[in-house]
Amino acid sequence: MNDKSKNITLGELASIIKGEAVGDIGYVVAGACSIENPVEHHITFAVDPGGVVELDKAKAQVAFIVGEKIQGVSIPMIVHKNPRLGFTLALRHFHPETSGTGKIHPSAVISESATINPTADVGPNAVIEAGARIGAGSIIGAGCYMGENSVIGENTRLYPNVTVMHDVAIGSGCIFHPGVVIGGDGFGFEATSDGNIKMPQVGRVEIGDNVEVGANTTIDRATLDATVISDDVKLDNLVQIAHNVKIGSHTRIAAQAGLSGRAVIGENVVIAGQAGFNNGVKVGDNSVVGGRAGVVGDIRAGTMVSGYPAREHGKSQRVIAATMRLPKLMEKVERLEKELAELVADIKNKTASKI
Amino acid sequence: MNDKSKNITLGELASIIKGEAVGDIGYVVAGACSIENPVEHHITFAVDPGGVVELDKAKAQVAFIVGEKIQGVSIPMIVHKNPRLGFTLALRHFHPETSGTGKIHPSAVISESATINPTADVGPNAVIEAGARIGAGSIIGAGCYMGENSVIGENTRLYPNVTVMHDVAIGSGCIFHPGVVIGGDGFGFEATSDGNIKMPQVGRVEIGDNVEVGANTTIDRATLDATVISDDVKLDNLVQIAHNVKIGSHTRIAAQAGLSGRAVIGENVVIAGQAGFNNGVKVGDNSVVGGRAGVVGDIRAGTMVSGYPAREHGKSQRVIAATMRLPKLMEKVERLEKELAELVADIKNKTASKI
Amino acid sequence: MNDKSKNITLGELASIIKGEAVGDIGYVVAGACSIENPVEHHITFAVDPGGVVELDKAKAQVAFIVGEKIQGVSIPMIVHKNPRLGFTLALRHFHPETSGTGKIHPSAVISESATINPTADVGPNAVIEAGARIGAGSIIGAGCYMGENSVIGENTRLYPNVTVMHDVAIGSGCIFHPGVVIGGDGFGFEATSDGNIKMPQVGRVEIGDNVEVGANTTIDRATLDATVISDDVKLDNLVQIAHNVKIGSHTRIAAQAGLSGRAVIGENVVIAGQAGFNNGVKVGDNSVVGGRAGVVGDIRAGTMVSGYPAREHGKSQRVIAATMRLPKLMEKVERLEKELAELVADIKNKTASKI
Repeated sequence: MNDKSKNITLGELASIIKGEAVGDIGYVVAGACSIENPVEHHITFAVDPGGVVELDKAKAQVAFIVGEKIQGVSIPMIVHKNPRLGFTLALRHFHPETSGTGKIHPSAVISESATINPTADVGPNAVIEAGARIGAGSIIGAGCYMGENSVIGENTRLYPNVTVMHDVAIGSGCIFHPGVVIGGDGFGFEATSDGNIKMPQVGRVEIGDNVEVGANTTIDRATLDATVISDDVKLDNLVQIAHNVKIGSHTRIAAQAGLSGRAVIGENVVIAGQAGFNNGVKVGDNSVVGGRAGVVGDIRAGTMVSGYPAREHGKSQRVIAATMRLPKLMEKVERLEKELAELVADIKNKTASKI
Repeated sequence: MNDKSKNITLGELASIIKGEAVGDIGYVVAGACSIENPVEHHITFAVDPGGVVELDKAKAQVAFIVGEKIQGVSIPMIVHKNPRLGFTLALRHFHPETSGTGKIHPSAVISESATINPTADVGPNAVIEAGARIGAGSIIGAGCYMGENSVIGENTRLYPNVTVMHDVAIGSGCIFHPGVVIGGDGFGFEATSDGNIKMPQVGRVEIGDNVEVGANTTIDRATLDATVISDDVKLDNLVQIAHNVKIGSHTRIAAQAGLSGRAVIGENVVIAGQAGFNNGVKVGDNSVVGGRAGVVGDIRAGTMVSGYPAREHGKSQRVIAATMRLPKLMEKVERLEKELAELVADIKNKTASKI
Repeated sequence: MNDKSKNITLGELASIIKGEAVGDIGYVVAGACSIENPVEHHITFAVDPGGVVELDKAKAQVAFIVGEKIQGVSIPMIVHKNPRLGFTLALRHFHPETSGTGKIHPSAVISESATINPTADVGPNAVIEAGARIGAGSIIGAGCYMGENSVIGENTRLYPNVTVMHDVAIGSGCIFHPGVVIGGDGFGFEATSDGNIKMPQVGRVEIGDNVEVGANTTIDRATLDATVISDDVKLDNLVQIAHNVKIGSHTRIAAQAGLSGRAVIGENVVIAGQAGFNNGVKVGDNSVVGGRAGVVGDIRAGTMVSGYPAREHGKSQRVIAATMRLPKLMEKVERLEKELAELVADIKNKTASKI
């Protein structure tokens, strides 16, 4: 996957990732690897020095990004205040994102009224409906569908088999993994004696820039107005975003979490896997929602919550800990009850014996 | 999205939605909007009068569907016993469902032995296998797959990229959102010393009329016989329906809920998001299952359950409330234990001092 | 679905499934059916004798696979030590798996540098990218996508609309249901003051032989190195497998379960529906994880766990049982508190009265 054109010296790489090279600054780095599977002339990272010392002893031909200079080793290193970020930047050097170059596959079915920038790619068997617009450098994968009047900005990538329904607007620099569905109808019905009457879902979906959406995640259109995913939001796989949800910038949501209709999530929120959110709940900025948490009410900004129903994490942990000691507590209460009864009986006996 | 041909007077709209126009019955209504984003000459709805009074004061050019006539305002209104239903019907007037008109895209791959009604549409790159049948007015979206001997009734719509496997029967008036998979194999294996032996899944899926299925939901075929989704069932996104499940009419199931094999759900049941059901459980008619509930045993008709394991909702709430007070209960028991011990010691001392 | 060429005598079928025919060994068996819907000259199975006796009385033209010979009935039977396994094998006789025969649909888009075995099938509108390889007898369904350098072994079947991304290696005898996505990016970002920086996901996915994956399940590629699904693993629908997860042979995972990054699951593990696993947890061989369990720490081999947080199943059940009695426990503690206070007051009074 690496080609020689990406080869770089340790010193050059340090400069790119804003770290400081230590040792042989002319050492050639050809790619990035994991610490478990070191590859010759590749770079990896370590948050503690143990692995570095070990590979140095083994004279492994590998370089490291580390948080602090490690004494007594001769292995090439780049010191970076955040080694994981440094490694991310190194990976980005060796694996840069690609953009479209104007390749339209002849099997793609493209409406005459669609507007496709001359540098955008459209893959085999993709379908682009009337009025759709695709910006410069964007890549529409094989088998993707873009509905009427859907819009995609610049350098956005739809991997294969993504479905974007009508009147969905997507920004620039986004990534959508296979199987994602954007703009399906929200779930809205009125129960009547004649059965369920569907409330037409006639709103839109608005997705900002630099948004990434994982495989098979679903984002419903709004009933009216718009479902809004702000800039730099990252959604993992199999996430459910219901109608009229709003998600603030930079928020990250892990796999299989589900947001019910009209939930409003702030900026910089972190939501762990399988968490669930009731209709209309509001989650403040910079909050953290634990895995499998069930959020049934609003969450104040800057709070960490967990459990079901979700509450402040410390309290939730104390309740869980207490729950685990519950069988013992029950025994203790039984014992107390017995002891008290015995004491009462004892006192009664003594009182009786005095009479 | 609205065109002028849908323009209607307040009086005409009141008649369509079976409400009563109040004020200027000749007021022209051009569409429906939300109360948060009123659009000129559009109609919205309100369940309480506050918003109506406010927009009346602001002289907003908007009409309202309300539950009761609001005094002292001149804004055009329709009084409807259920404003939300009234608004749903108004939305349906402005956004009627469409039917096929016989458009077969040349890129569709259609078996010679498939039977497609002359008024049905088949979109680009759709694949229709041998023996499949599609009824009048139905619309098969781009990239859809219909397996051998699959059947679709009239005026049913498959949005793009829906997969219907062989021997699946679907009724009329249904809607399937993108990414839905119907008729994948049930999950059945016999564990042996030679590994897992797959039990062939040779049953069918039978789906009634007016069923709606959300994006990326999966409905497995039966091991033998049929998985049955009755008329007017509504499934949200990312729902799992396992082999041989049966769901009664009018039941609604929210996103990410999962029904294990052979679960039997009654009629008019409401199941909230992320709920789970064990193999073979039976849920009676008119029950309500709360969000994230874990149903491990049968549920009587007309019951509301919640929690894990799911039990009657009131009990479940009491248990949760009690759980939250558990750390304090533990302190109280500690204190009682100490007080009792002191009392016992005290009595012993007094007795001793008397001797 | 059955054709006469599969007709077989009871004696022959007994020999195929390694059971013992009882009664009319020349009885013709034409297929397999359920006990609820007996079909003439078909075979079903029973784990208890009640149903057999009933159908025998009704003179049903049906045969049975049973665990022990049932006395006093004349219905044709095969005795098998595991009737369910016997029935599975009978089903496999009547519904054998099919293999490719070299059918390449003209609408498929196949790179010149892809290598497709002459006996493999490629369905309509499938897309096979450069360097992809498909082994003998494998079947690539309609609308499937195989990315660059993806590899599929022999007799593996991709049902329609499966997405296999680049550098994914899949073994022989596997089955992938519609909507499956293999090789989407893992969810990895570094939060910085400039927003989330994507960590490129440059690893692979390695899938062994005889693996089955349910509809709309997602398996992410590794950040570095490989996400590994070993031989004979069975995944149900809508399961999430994150980057760098490793799953041991023969393990079965039910619908909507989710494994976070770097989780390591042993061999022969059974995981029930909607269970969740934290990053990096290790689950030992032969463990059982209950439905909706939340696994937050390592699980020893051979353990059955349930609940959230997941703990040994017996303990978990005792805690749940205790939780349900918690409101009563609270009342009891209130009573004890009152009784103790009364006793203390009583003693004080008596002491006072003596003075």
